[in-house]
Amino acid sequence: MSKTVIEHVLSRLNEIGICDIFGVAGDYAFPIEDAVCESKNMRWIGNCNELNASYAADGYARTKGAAALSTTFGVGELSALNGIAGSYAENLAIFHLVGMPASGVQKKHRLVHHSLGNGDFDVFYQMSQHLSCAHAILTPENCIAETERLITTALHERRPVYLGFPSDYAVMPVIADENTETITIHKSNDESLSAAVTAIIEKLNSSSQACVIPGILTARLGLADDVQTIINKTGLPYATMFMDKAILSESNPSYMGIYNGQLMNHAVAEFVENCDCILGIGAVLTDFNSGSFTATVKVENWINILADHVKIGSAVYPQVYMKDVLSELKRLAPSLNHRGITAQGLGEPIQNQQGKITAAYLYPRLEKMFKKDDIIITETGTASMGLGFALLPENAQVYNQTLWGSIGWATPAAFGAAIAAPQRRVILVTGEGSHQLTVQEISQFARFGLKPIIFVLNNDGYLIERLLCKNPEAYYNDIAQWNYAQLPAALGCTNWYCQRVTDCNELDAAIKAAELSDNAAYIEIVMDRYAASELAQKLGDSIASLYSF
Amino acid sequence: MSKTVIEHVLSRLNEIGICDIFGVAGDYAFPIEDAVCESKNMRWIGNCNELNASYAADGYARTKGAAALSTTFGVGELSALNGIAGSYAENLAIFHLVGMPASGVQKKHRLVHHSLGNGDFDVFYQMSQHLSCAHAILTPENCIAETERLITTALHERRPVYLGFPSDYAVMPVIADENTETITIHKSNDESLSAAVTAIIEKLNSSSQACVIPGILTARLGLADDVQTIINKTGLPYATMFMDKAILSESNPSYMGIYNGQLMNHAVAEFVENCDCILGIGAVLTDFNSGSFTATVKVENWINILADHVKIGSAVYPQVYMKDVLSELKRLAPSLNHRGITAQGLGEPIQNQQGKITAAYLYPRLEKMFKKDDIIITETGTASMGLGFALLPENAQVYNQTLWGSIGWATPAAFGAAIAAPQRRVILVTGEGSHQLTVQEISQFARFGLKPIIFVLNNDGYLIERLLCKNPEAYYNDIAQWNYAQLPAALGCTNWYCQRVTDCNELDAAIKAAELSDNAAYIEIVMDRYAASELAQKLGDSIASLYSF
Repeated sequence: MSKTVIEHVLSRLNEIGICDIFGVAGDYAFPIEDAVCESKNMRWIGNCNELNASYAADGYARTKGAAALSTTFGVGELSALNGIAGSYAENLAIFHLVGMPASGVQKKHRLVHHSLGNGDFDVFYQMSQHLSCAHAILTPENCIAETERLITTALHERRPVYLGFPSDYAVMPVIADENTETITIHKSNDESLSAAVTAIIEKLNSSSQACVIPGILTARLGLADDVQTIINKTGLPYATMFMDKAILSESNPSYMGIYNGQLMNHAVAEFVENCDCILGIGAVLTDFNSGSFTATVKVENWINILADHVKIGSAVYPQVYMKDVLSELKRLAPSLNHRGITAQGLGEPIQNQQGKITAAYLYPRLEKMFKKDDIIITETGTASMGLGFALLPENAQVYNQTLWGSIGWATPAAFGAAIAAPQRRVILVTGEGSHQLTVQEISQFARFGLKPIIFVLNNDGYLIERLLCKNPEAYYNDIAQWNYAQLPAALGCTNWYCQRVTDCNELDAAIKAAELSDNAAYIEIVMDRYAASELAQKLGDSIASLYSF
Repeated sequence: MSKTVIEHVLSRLNEIGICDIFGVAGDYAFPIEDAVCESKNMRWIGNCNELNASYAADGYARTKGAAALSTTFGVGELSALNGIAGSYAENLAIFHLVGMPASGVQKKHRLVHHSLGNGDFDVFYQMSQHLSCAHAILTPENCIAETERLITTALHERRPVYLGFPSDYAVMPVIADENTETITIHKSNDESLSAAVTAIIEKLNSSSQACVIPGILTARLGLADDVQTIINKTGLPYATMFMDKAILSESNPSYMGIYNGQLMNHAVAEFVENCDCILGIGAVLTDFNSGSFTATVKVENWINILADHVKIGSAVYPQVYMKDVLSELKRLAPSLNHRGITAQGLGEPIQNQQGKITAAYLYPRLEKMFKKDDIIITETGTASMGLGFALLPENAQVYNQTLWGSIGWATPAAFGAAIAAPQRRVILVTGEGSHQLTVQEISQFARFGLKPIIFVLNNDGYLIERLLCKNPEAYYNDIAQWNYAQLPAALGCTNWYCQRVTDCNELDAAIKAAELSDNAAYIEIVMDRYAASELAQKLGDSIASLYSF
């Protein structure tokens, strides 16, 4: 018997490695939810709300390469849009499965719940198209071809796609179409590819000082290993920018550290900016990726291998895909003899006389606890800015959301990562202001038997905002005062190790206890109102231009 | 000195009765937030997240007629869209103030945080236009005229409007424009108005049995008093539909109860459907408003006075505004001698032998505690369906979200209502599944010194979904188990009266304690997994057609 529309889609998603569907149950999406629960290979992960589901999917996709979430018409799908937009901005393949009213209800423009009451069933689909690289309303007739098109596009562009399921169509058998078009395989133009590769090699060979700057897109496209191979073959040193942290090993001797323009790591900046050949691979100079646009790389020294073209100086080589370029470079790249500088970590934690937990103590102390294979999720703000410069052990990964920067993302994203990689240790470091947006999702870790270590930095408000706005003590930077260490118990996380710490000794003890615990840990770290990481402190002046002209 | 763009807008919003701006701080919105905090007449209400802010604004607008929220570019505004859509569907005037990057950043298409990284600064504005009745990006030049246009449109259509503020423009002085167009006042066509009113009066005079069905739009447009006057003048009995509950007094002797088609209140249905003249005033036959489309009113018996036209039988009288029609009817409507039936409440609470808290006990018990002037917010699901048929004292109001039906709405909406009317008692009744979506907002009540009474019905999952889906025990209807009564303390609500109750005696005692308490109360009511209100139980079969064809 042929599969139903939803069964077909789920089966294809499963074949590309998706085993879990995040979401919130809703009546128009019953056919999706039923099919997930009845499937042998798929698991339904019910989140507390749809925004959290979209963030969780984002974290899962960072870990497994792709993710899916299901929401219901109108109310559900709109709540997920911010998370979907973040995945769009940061190149993650997310399959957004939306349950819609039955086709007849739509055709008759009936006034039903979760609609705007105007008979328009197209409006939310139109809105989502702005945040999708492809989209379709699935029917029995188009299901097979459209599913292939959406999967291919999502994986090629590493962006979200939207799949609408009218509830009656969802449960109908798919109709096989002999004429289904074969999927377009994106192939480089041979001449352009050959010219680009030749030019890259020429530029590398003639350089006196060169380095590689690999970007997040290499990891998203599953090409990080290729980049590492090229680095090993050429012997070139490499630095990463903020958003791209740890996509390649930070314990490799060729790794020099984070390049953050003039704001941080001056030795790295000096080396990079003195190179006459910088080989960017999917590197993007956004504001927070470039030290607030203080990265000053001369155009003529800059090669950038992007998703579908290559830039060398002012020349563009179109229709050249990163995968093909890297494949050629793996074969043809020269062995060079350039020495870089040695990456520096954060050093020893520094206690002040009162033993208070300062940034100078906290971030180096956290760096010390990181282990091989850890997944560390750092929330946008002083937390991510503090840990961006930690030096990580082999195969430890940091996820941040540098470009989209939606506060609240980190808590559910950590949950999604933990679902994707239950065998790895997941560490979440978040400010308490951001944590408040999506806090209920910590209950899901316990529900699914996951054991994260969660650090909540409590500095009495939105610290990053205090540092950026004109009056740090403005009332809008204050937030409600919570008793964070009591939260896990209230949210049903029984037997978690929960602790509130206010000085360095307590912090040390809590970290040790968390490391020894057989269960999850939740540590509220009380810090001074202005205890900010170095980059966060420096950012205020440099970013002001974004607001004033 | 002339006001800045943002100062001008805030001052005009204040003049129409808005004293509070809900929102979440964000850097592109600093000029908005600064101006609010520096204003003498405005208060910044920082919510835990933007969805909650939009729901709070919705609750505030239900109470005060209009509301405003401020979010930051991209990340913030998108998170608010679901709440804004609900206000659009349910006709609430919401001013959505969005802080944008400076105009120069936009013109140069710079790659900045909270953007999609593609230089497009228009995309979110375009998305919001689907959910706004008017929209503008404000500049010093257009500020005065556009502000008037947006205010007029929002109050006329009772829908959200979108105001974008590039951060540099926001703080520039407004430029007065002598040529500012005068605002269009929406005026009825005299002939059409006169014809409609004559036809209405004729139909009323010739009726043998008639009644009024006032809809929510009358309350939204501030016309409920006019409707009450017409009812008093004509002596006509009236019933309301579900969404429109309590927009007129339920303690008036002419009130007959809720008309819910064939599903509930059969005596009301019989009376209404036997009328040869039913005067609808802004009544809308959506699915849940009409007992799943079981309301069977003959077209020829049906008059409906809508926002900008009147329908009498099959005839439409265009360009006739509700305000003008009601004004004429107040003057001209005849005194008639129709008797209706007497509204019935829920009766005495019924205990079963085990003393468990059943729907037959809970909802009548809650009805007994309601007092004059209460604002009762009922969450979509079995809670709203149970309380929809309670009979309310004078000037008590029920807010539900019948059309949009976004679960999670009620908790922040209750907060918004409490901010709007701190002198009134606010009672929130929510299922625990819905509560989980937006739970953090309860911390705001404490922060702002508000004292709601909150009932959380814990029935171990999404009960309404269990009743509607094909396998009630499907895993997607389960949710994480929380210790609800511990939540307020963890969320910083000190000294609240918090109690978990599992039988009728405990419930009685807790209600009494809450009523006597000088502080807020939070009562977790543990009910059977399938303890659903009558309407919720009946809904399953009747609503199935929305999914299947």
